[in-house]
Amino acid sequence: MARIGVLTGGGDCPGLDAVIRAVVRRGLTEGANTFVGFRGGWQGLFDDDTVELTQAGTSGILTRGGTVLGTSRTNPMSRGSDGVQVIRDTMSRQGIDALIAIGGDGTLRGAHDLWQEGIPLVGVPKTIDNDVGGTDASVGFHTAVQIATDAIDRLHTTAESHNRVMLVEVMGRDAGWIAVCAGMAGGADAILVPERPFAITEVCERLHHRHERGRSFSIIVVAEGATPRSADQGTDHGGHGNTLEYATVGGISAELQQEIEARTGYETRATILGYVQRGGTPTAYDRMLATRFGTAATDAVLAGRFGTMMALHGTRIETVALEQALQTRNPLDPDIYETAAVFFG
Amino acid sequence: MARIGVLTGGGDCPGLDAVIRAVVRRGLTEGANTFVGFRGGWQGLFDDDTVELTQAGTSGILTRGGTVLGTSRTNPMSRGSDGVQVIRDTMSRQGIDALIAIGGDGTLRGAHDLWQEGIPLVGVPKTIDNDVGGTDASVGFHTAVQIATDAIDRLHTTAESHNRVMLVEVMGRDAGWIAVCAGMAGGADAILVPERPFAITEVCERLHHRHERGRSFSIIVVAEGATPRSADQGTDHGGHGNTLEYATVGGISAELQQEIEARTGYETRATILGYVQRGGTPTAYDRMLATRFGTAATDAVLAGRFGTMMALHGTRIETVALEQALQTRNPLDPDIYETAAVFFG
Amino acid sequence: MARIGVLTGGGDCPGLDAVIRAVVRRGLTEGANTFVGFRGGWQGLFDDDTVELTQAGTSGILTRGGTVLGTSRTNPMSRGSDGVQVIRDTMSRQGIDALIAIGGDGTLRGAHDLWQEGIPLVGVPKTIDNDVGGTDASVGFHTAVQIATDAIDRLHTTAESHNRVMLVEVMGRDAGWIAVCAGMAGGADAILVPERPFAITEVCERLHHRHERGRSFSIIVVAEGATPRSADQGTDHGGHGNTLEYATVGGISAELQQEIEARTGYETRATILGYVQRGGTPTAYDRMLATRFGTAATDAVLAGRFGTMMALHGTRIETVALEQALQTRNPLDPDIYETAAVFFG
Amino acid sequence: MARIGVLTGGGDCPGLDAVIRAVVRRGLTEGANTFVGFRGGWQGLFDDDTVELTQAGTSGILTRGGTVLGTSRTNPMSRGSDGVQVIRDTMSRQGIDALIAIGGDGTLRGAHDLWQEGIPLVGVPKTIDNDVGGTDASVGFHTAVQIATDAIDRLHTTAESHNRVMLVEVMGRDAGWIAVCAGMAGGADAILVPERPFAITEVCERLHHRHERGRSFSIIVVAEGATPRSADQGTDHGGHGNTLEYATVGGISAELQQEIEARTGYETRATILGYVQRGGTPTAYDRMLATRFGTAATDAVLAGRFGTMMALHGTRIETVALEQALQTRNPLDPDIYETAAVFFG
Repeated sequence: MARIGVLTGGGDCPGLDAVIRAVVRRGLTEGANTFVGFRGGWQGLFDDDTVELTQAGTSGILTRGGTVLGTSRTNPMSRGSDGVQVIRDTMSRQGIDALIAIGGDGTLRGAHDLWQEGIPLVGVPKTIDNDVGGTDASVGFHTAVQIATDAIDRLHTTAESHNRVMLVEVMGRDAGWIAVCAGMAGGADAILVPERPFAITEVCERLHHRHERGRSFSIIVVAEGATPRSADQGTDHGGHGNTLEYATVGGISAELQQEIEARTGYETRATILGYVQRGGTPTAYDRMLATRFGTAATDAVLAGRFGTMMALHGTRIETVALEQALQTRNPLDPDIYETAAVFFG
Repeated sequence: MARIGVLTGGGDCPGLDAVIRAVVRRGLTEGANTFVGFRGGWQGLFDDDTVELTQAGTSGILTRGGTVLGTSRTNPMSRGSDGVQVIRDTMSRQGIDALIAIGGDGTLRGAHDLWQEGIPLVGVPKTIDNDVGGTDASVGFHTAVQIATDAIDRLHTTAESHNRVMLVEVMGRDAGWIAVCAGMAGGADAILVPERPFAITEVCERLHHRHERGRSFSIIVVAEGATPRSADQGTDHGGHGNTLEYATVGGISAELQQEIEARTGYETRATILGYVQRGGTPTAYDRMLATRFGTAATDAVLAGRFGTMMALHGTRIETVALEQALQTRNPLDPDIYETAAVFFG
Repeated sequence: MARIGVLTGGGDCPGLDAVIRAVVRRGLTEGANTFVGFRGGWQGLFDDDTVELTQAGTSGILTRGGTVLGTSRTNPMSRGSDGVQVIRDTMSRQGIDALIAIGGDGTLRGAHDLWQEGIPLVGVPKTIDNDVGGTDASVGFHTAVQIATDAIDRLHTTAESHNRVMLVEVMGRDAGWIAVCAGMAGGADAILVPERPFAITEVCERLHHRHERGRSFSIIVVAEGATPRSADQGTDHGGHGNTLEYATVGGISAELQQEIEARTGYETRATILGYVQRGGTPTAYDRMLATRFGTAATDAVLAGRFGTMMALHGTRIETVALEQALQTRNPLDPDIYETAAVFFG
Repeated sequence: MARIGVLTGGGDCPGLDAVIRAVVRRGLTEGANTFVGFRGGWQGLFDDDTVELTQAGTSGILTRGGTVLGTSRTNPMSRGSDGVQVIRDTMSRQGIDALIAIGGDGTLRGAHDLWQEGIPLVGVPKTIDNDVGGTDASVGFHTAVQIATDAIDRLHTTAESHNRVMLVEVMGRDAGWIAVCAGMAGGADAILVPERPFAITEVCERLHHRHERGRSFSIIVVAEGATPRSADQGTDHGGHGNTLEYATVGGISAELQQEIEARTGYETRATILGYVQRGGTPTAYDRMLATRFGTAATDAVLAGRFGTMMALHGTRIETVALEQALQTRNPLDPDIYETAAVFFG
């Protein structure tokens, strides 16, 4: 019998509520365990801001996006050892035996640091950016890819009807995972990712090449973190240099739109998908992953396997040491990029 | 037996291909009629750029977005009477008896002008902006509203999870139809439309009011054409004046985001839905409307009812004189706005 | 200031919760009105089974399918004048000034009968069958058509890949509305509806005809109430008579499947869409209609316009006398059927 | 430089066209390879029924369901060694160096047998049943799970509104994969699969138990191959025996519906999802998997790695010997079933 604290940290994403529901239900079927949720991520532990998590209270949330607990980007180590003591005090006051922290790279690093301080906890990886190491997949990523793919499907018909270049800017921070996966699934003609700085001249050459072959429209998927190659000194079609400076407002795609139009003369339009990629009902894949991670997290707590993170390896849910999982972030798979690139131009 | 020319003009939208398919199929079942499509809207008549439209060629396009004929914003009167003669010559060369012009306000005005010049034609209204007069609905509008509503649904969960103000900028040019309808369908807490210039102070007061009642998140739908009230001298919460000037890049929502954050201190995020509202498979409603308009347009041509536009009146498809339909644009229904406003704040 | 009772009767459909939410919100913005919901349709008035409807309690239900009040097919007149007295007593005990009854033909007839007995009420039409008279549309119908259309889209690819005849059985009781509208929107090659008894021989001839023209697959949409023509004595391709008797289990489509395979030799498969047509989130169209009907219903109650039903006429929400609305059920529009038939064979 | 034959066999599913597109595009970027498609699976090799597969011809099919090549269940060994010789002759006549066979268990066994006869080929696994061994996933499965999950979401609201037991029958032949995964993702209250014969008495007890706890509705997902436990001698609530015999028409769910109603008295409704699970646009996940498998299959042919099947292992695409992959079918993962079962009752 245990009393378990639960929190969600970092940016929200579809599937968080499905994890919370699974954590609680598993604990209730395994005995007289109880659950308390902390509101607003680690901040809830500083503020002792809690809500009791019951079966009734977590019923019907499987299909929801977002998180009933709210979230924040508060770092649990931000207040130093005094802050850690506050967390200990809150846990003690609430009678909590262990924590389950559901979050991305930042939240899980916070969890790891607290575990180093002796606080018993386990982690569940979620991120639409797919940059958490140690697991084949994190909750939320596949839903974001599906949403971006649906959008690219819609943009395809407009691109064709108007003979336009359509730029689609997707999320991912400094990772190109959403861009490459949605680009592959949506049949993109070019994909620009942070991991492979691009030359605007090469992008425009590819567009020219397509036009010469009678393909008068193109879809370019751009990761929000994509950057031009620093020493881009290639051939210049439009009399413009290569020193692009990207406006904050409008993202990189607004700047690219102007640059491509100026260099190629092709009508170009940009769409920034934005926050729709983080919200709404999770795909079946993410609901399953979230449910499996959630039940496994409660099992790990009840078995005392602290300092671990739930992980998908092939078709299995396993636990890995947080320390090991966080050693490196999950790099963009070059094979996936190369497969997507088969369809460029 | 007739030979009929078909074109699509203006911005693309879902349902255009469904109209083209219906036009052709109706003509084929009614006798030995033939159809020729002009590429790129009225431009295709200037350039004699054509494609034969057969049953086989229009099979399978019911479910597609965009237009197989391509489109442009070319005005058929842009070359004066010489241009009209070019159009006459093209029609004569192709042996065309009459035209079916599928388009929005601009395309239909061009059609009306050509009809005044004696060119036999009928029009089919399409627009995501819903600003064509004389009909209860135009092809494409309901699909755009559905897409925007789906996006608002997704943004709701993120707004809740992060206690944020989420701005959603939708299309509509100088009309607030998409904003009001999607805002009503998505449960928006405020809707800003061109027809009702807003006061930023009132918007912020409403957000304050919601917060005081414990609603720490809000969804604001903003039409791309929304503008602040000119003499907005209301109470100022944040020390900022009311002379907003909206950047072209990023749309009005980028500016509003900064303004609301500065005035209220609430975390605010903007999403500009953009071209996804124009593309992809049409809803069942738009497929039906497009199919009914398309068959009726061919019937009108075969019956010699030229100078008319297809129109939905209640549940009936009827024809109205282009002249009459274009007298005024379809104004935003105040009752619909007032109904949406019941749910504000 | 009024206290208003609300109930939902008959089969459930998407948009009921949106009506309830709008009823309540409109009443709260118009003054100190209060609302009480009766559980399980008219049964809730017999049993005094109630739930208070507050703003908090109706928040977040706009996007839901089904009804938070539950529903039943109980007829309020089923207990005669004693039953009516029970209803009066319940209303008196609850301090209720008037009722808003949300339902289809059956529920609204019950409402009309109670109104004849002097009970103040207004009605809101909902039905996926689209058979309520006096209004251009009822809540739920468009969502059902959209769901059926999505299913037909999916079945198309299987029909093509396997050169099959695919039967899709849709709901509608004795009305062919869903079949015709989804069939038109989905591009059906034949649509069988109760209003036009079919000859199996003609259906098979049409399939033969398509095959001869190289179309080796077909989609047939069948309304659950479709019936064969009684004196079907046409040519018989397969040596089978025309006296089909349809099994209850499996619906008419199971029987049709066997009959078509036996007569034509074409591989044929049946899909019965069933209850998915009644559930899940409503389309934007139905959310708007529900919201407009709901606010108008409260307005009608507060204005004392009892014995009326909310109705869509063109783009306007109006009230019609229940008596007049219920005189005839909404017949299948022959023009819509004939337009769909343009694409047969 | 190679000339490669391509075929799709067995039941159709979403993602087949995406594999074909990827096979061809990879071959074209790697040199002057050419591709010929065989129509109707292995039957196309018997009949020399072919279509040239070009870049233009495979453009735009990424998002489609079904297969442009058509399919059949013809076994290539069904005509013995004479038949194998016919296949050899066809390949020789077409100048084909190797085959890529895209299919499920049956098609891949045929491929394996031909490989044993010395015909150079590779296989790509597709099946909505998820029963192909040697790979973490096959093309089509995730889309089928998503479709079934969407349907369960819709049925949930009807179940709640009417206090009903809703049975949802899903595909899977003798495998319970779709049932368990969609059941988990849809929040099912019971899941009946072939791998775990059920006792009707236990199912009814669980429903009773839920009712006692105030949950007056339930969702039961039933795999089409689910069977009752043979020696089901448990307690009987309704006076009925346990010797269920399931009608072919209507599937097991029709029988279960009657049985559950009779034993519990709860209103029960069955929905058989049927062929919608096989059709329509693939999910982003399946488009990616199909694209990766397709490019890898062409790579395997060009590298002469014959007798292999493409396989997903974790996040990697690898090749496994057909012989090894087909040794056992992919059994239902007991951990996944047990995780789904946490939420039963």
